[in-house]
Amino acid sequence: MPELALLEEIVESVRPLLGQGKVADYIPALAQVDANKLGIAVTTADGVTIGAGDYLEPFSIQSISKVFSLTLALMLYEEDEIWSRVGKEPSGHSFNSLVQVELEKGVPRNPFINAGALIIADLLQSRLGAPKHRMLEIVRGLSENHRVGYDKVVAASEYQHSARNAAIAYLMKSFGNFNNDVDTVLHSYFHYCSLRMSCADLSRTMFYLANSGKSLAGKQLISPVQTRQLNALLATSGLYDGAGEFAYRVGMPGKSGVGGGIIAVIPGDMSVCVWSPELDPNGNSLAGTAILEALSQTLGRSIF
Amino acid sequence: MPELALLEEIVESVRPLLGQGKVADYIPALAQVDANKLGIAVTTADGVTIGAGDYLEPFSIQSISKVFSLTLALMLYEEDEIWSRVGKEPSGHSFNSLVQVELEKGVPRNPFINAGALIIADLLQSRLGAPKHRMLEIVRGLSENHRVGYDKVVAASEYQHSARNAAIAYLMKSFGNFNNDVDTVLHSYFHYCSLRMSCADLSRTMFYLANSGKSLAGKQLISPVQTRQLNALLATSGLYDGAGEFAYRVGMPGKSGVGGGIIAVIPGDMSVCVWSPELDPNGNSLAGTAILEALSQTLGRSIF
Amino acid sequence: MPELALLEEIVESVRPLLGQGKVADYIPALAQVDANKLGIAVTTADGVTIGAGDYLEPFSIQSISKVFSLTLALMLYEEDEIWSRVGKEPSGHSFNSLVQVELEKGVPRNPFINAGALIIADLLQSRLGAPKHRMLEIVRGLSENHRVGYDKVVAASEYQHSARNAAIAYLMKSFGNFNNDVDTVLHSYFHYCSLRMSCADLSRTMFYLANSGKSLAGKQLISPVQTRQLNALLATSGLYDGAGEFAYRVGMPGKSGVGGGIIAVIPGDMSVCVWSPELDPNGNSLAGTAILEALSQTLGRSIF
Amino acid sequence: MPELALLEEIVESVRPLLGQGKVADYIPALAQVDANKLGIAVTTADGVTIGAGDYLEPFSIQSISKVFSLTLALMLYEEDEIWSRVGKEPSGHSFNSLVQVELEKGVPRNPFINAGALIIADLLQSRLGAPKHRMLEIVRGLSENHRVGYDKVVAASEYQHSARNAAIAYLMKSFGNFNNDVDTVLHSYFHYCSLRMSCADLSRTMFYLANSGKSLAGKQLISPVQTRQLNALLATSGLYDGAGEFAYRVGMPGKSGVGGGIIAVIPGDMSVCVWSPELDPNGNSLAGTAILEALSQTLGRSIF
Repeated sequence: MPELALLEEIVESVRPLLGQGKVADYIPALAQVDANKLGIAVTTADGVTIGAGDYLEPFSIQSISKVFSLTLALMLYEEDEIWSRVGKEPSGHSFNSLVQVELEKGVPRNPFINAGALIIADLLQSRLGAPKHRMLEIVRGLSENHRVGYDKVVAASEYQHSARNAAIAYLMKSFGNFNNDVDTVLHSYFHYCSLRMSCADLSRTMFYLANSGKSLAGKQLISPVQTRQLNALLATSGLYDGAGEFAYRVGMPGKSGVGGGIIAVIPGDMSVCVWSPELDPNGNSLAGTAILEALSQTLGRSIF
Repeated sequence: MPELALLEEIVESVRPLLGQGKVADYIPALAQVDANKLGIAVTTADGVTIGAGDYLEPFSIQSISKVFSLTLALMLYEEDEIWSRVGKEPSGHSFNSLVQVELEKGVPRNPFINAGALIIADLLQSRLGAPKHRMLEIVRGLSENHRVGYDKVVAASEYQHSARNAAIAYLMKSFGNFNNDVDTVLHSYFHYCSLRMSCADLSRTMFYLANSGKSLAGKQLISPVQTRQLNALLATSGLYDGAGEFAYRVGMPGKSGVGGGIIAVIPGDMSVCVWSPELDPNGNSLAGTAILEALSQTLGRSIF
Repeated sequence: MPELALLEEIVESVRPLLGQGKVADYIPALAQVDANKLGIAVTTADGVTIGAGDYLEPFSIQSISKVFSLTLALMLYEEDEIWSRVGKEPSGHSFNSLVQVELEKGVPRNPFINAGALIIADLLQSRLGAPKHRMLEIVRGLSENHRVGYDKVVAASEYQHSARNAAIAYLMKSFGNFNNDVDTVLHSYFHYCSLRMSCADLSRTMFYLANSGKSLAGKQLISPVQTRQLNALLATSGLYDGAGEFAYRVGMPGKSGVGGGIIAVIPGDMSVCVWSPELDPNGNSLAGTAILEALSQTLGRSIF
Repeated sequence: MPELALLEEIVESVRPLLGQGKVADYIPALAQVDANKLGIAVTTADGVTIGAGDYLEPFSIQSISKVFSLTLALMLYEEDEIWSRVGKEPSGHSFNSLVQVELEKGVPRNPFINAGALIIADLLQSRLGAPKHRMLEIVRGLSENHRVGYDKVVAASEYQHSARNAAIAYLMKSFGNFNNDVDTVLHSYFHYCSLRMSCADLSRTMFYLANSGKSLAGKQLISPVQTRQLNALLATSGLYDGAGEFAYRVGMPGKSGVGGGIIAVIPGDMSVCVWSPELDPNGNSLAGTAILEALSQTLGRSIF
């Protein structure tokens, strides 16, 4: 297991990469983040979390929330109810593309592209009385941090720039694959994305992915088989159009967000979260990926 | 590690699936195979190979040969010389599609779809005096079976039905990403595909993927890092358009062929080969996938 | 010029085709129409309208309204204000496809596919205080029939099934090519489509296309050059994905609607409207096209 | 009908556009042409040809030859034998794209994109003993110029850069829609494209399109109906991805070539050929289109 000194060393070793990526700027609230932030937290098999750099500072988790949504859907629905509406395959298209959704008649390729995550949000909306409240409850529980909350400014700003996601939702609705009011679901969806959490929060929250579905507090969220399946989906589709490269370089199931965070796990071993706001052309944290690659190579650990 | 009895039990448990898939029939030589064949071979970390069913009977390995080609290319070329010409991402399109190759200006998504494998075959042609001979030599060595050979009837038949692959190669040539004579490379490519090997041969041959790059005979073919990378590519792109589903159900890096074979590995643990000629709609062995899924679930082992 | 007897003869000659097409059924209000309706009206250069069959019966004009919208936009805007937002080329894709709109960054191919017509509706919304009222005024004037009106049931039904068009509008909005509230524009758009007019009404209304832009009442709606340009766009893009076949068989600029109407013109000569609710696979009136083909061949007249 | 003085005036009026386009440079033989050439020839209904500028200088007709090929096919085959293998619709894709050919299972959209023209060349190959010789014979007869010939350098150079067209032909072959040896057909195809003709030659040759199928010498090549149909296809698909714009600006059925030539007709009135080597982004002669537009506007003549 990694020593604290190792984490600090790795953080410093990738710091020279800062300046090579590009902070997401499609909404003002994201564009204002300090581009020089850099952090990592690791939660090891014994439940201890260590970190280096800005690992205690909350950031906008964005698409990392898609892992929570899917987990929650797995807790609420039978397998078939989910996988009849969304696929399990890498998309080969941009995360917000409508092309494939149209060609494949309203069924998105996987739950981690926007179209698929909107299906999951639609499922949650159908079965939860107060989905935003329930999501917050779960995330606070898993992270063991009751100050985790939504960023209302980010959520509102996303909503104001929601035309593309609205287009995706309406397209699926036109194929009969969307059940709730589009606006209502978008509202929930953007709230999930606006969660503010630190690397420490996220590595603790994701511990169940490394621990056969059992949380830090010992609660069995999803079964060991479901956990393996979820990790498999993350490995093949978790990194937008860069899943292959990420598997090649890092070798861990993972999920990135445009806020610059990436979570990753080695099942049985540890959950990790890195953060650096500048993104590579695929929309994944540039220095964050480098931290994970260095960690994997230094420890000689990966799932492969 | 699996006992022989377990393998036999699993083989019998999936036998009822026979009849639900469809034997590849695009060339007569493949269409004639006995649809009821069913076999598995496992080579464990200590180098011992055990098997059940028709695991000693040779079959046409087809696209499984793409793993050998890429391995050979990794032995002959610098990383950049390969990855500047072919990508590392899942394609999201059919294995023989030209759409993406055109849209992405002649650079195929990964080395396991036809376009990518033709790039690899073009690389081998450029650097090997007698690529077919060399390939045979390597495969015979790795499988420790000197009777492994090409099936001239299959190779000739593939060549007669080569229009689609010729179209792919010429399209890449039009973008400047194909260096040798198209006919010559197709000739080599179809020979690689026509190799006849048994499950036992293949699980032995693939042992290096489970053994940090070192063959059964102890030869370091590729480095441990390269082996992890190759396994990562297999996990994200090895099963045509069914990689996500395969990861979800089986959880091992693998590669299928339309002859009905699938190889898979758990790094550090074992290499496996299954064979059943009937294919699912994605072109992967239907009962073969079920055998691997049962094996993974029974052993509680996967990379996830 | 055609005699009344000829029109009646042609109508009878195509009657055997009834039963070979399919009435549009995506909304109940359209599905209920009598499939055996068949009519033609011709307005000749001297302004006289003659007709045969059910040429006095009003039907849902649907996409034929896209010609009115574009004409109105040409009256309200400078050329560049229109053609910077929508193209002039045949699309090669289905009339309600989002694929091309995404690939071409929110600029639809032409004003007669849904995406393009929504741009035109957005333009009208921006400049007209009461676009629905103004449209009605114009159409009543041109057809010289003050009973022409909107079908509220059809408009409401279209609006209830508006997900696909909403998706298209939001997609264009996401590229910055949609200025008004999506719902508001859809509301106007569906009203235009719901206009009920007879073949006689429509051939009179379209007279300006055959008369260098001047209406039956002698009003110059658009200039002679604009009229030629509008006819050119109808010839290349007016018949969904069947424009080439229509030009080949009929040889007149034209526009069809899923209500089974088709308008067509021979500039300088006549405007025509045919109606038969059953559609061919491209969504154009099957018997209606046959009537126009017979008319063109019997008169030996076409633009070619 | 246009006076000689008018043609000369129009040529001079567009000369300032020279320098704004780009000479085709994908083969050296085309790149070397003098970019300042500019010419027009008109053959009027009475069979007289007049011209201005460089209208007597031969140039590489390139895709204009696709009109000859299709005409020859119409003379040799029943309608169904042609239109079962190639469509009549605008493509909406680039002239040398494989995307649509793959998605539509080997049937090209129309006979004027490369894929469609290769189908026509395949048809000619099947029925003519010496297609290159026969084509030359016909073109010499129609142009009444027995010095018209193939440019061997251009044909050879095209053949050396034939990978893209080979890919298209092999793709259609893989769908069973190509009957002859690919190389042989490409050889003929590139010869047709390499014909060297002047504006005067081409306007004379194309006279039959304006004259109900009858050549200058009074020979009925194709029927009046077939001529109307051919003109209809030219109007909707003759100008690559710029057919709509060309119809809008010029209003005549036409066909362009990357050598900078464009032929166009007003049925019953005249056939025209213009030449200026610099192309617009759609691959159509920039100044050539402007000449035709000016001619159409000055005469107040178009098919619309």
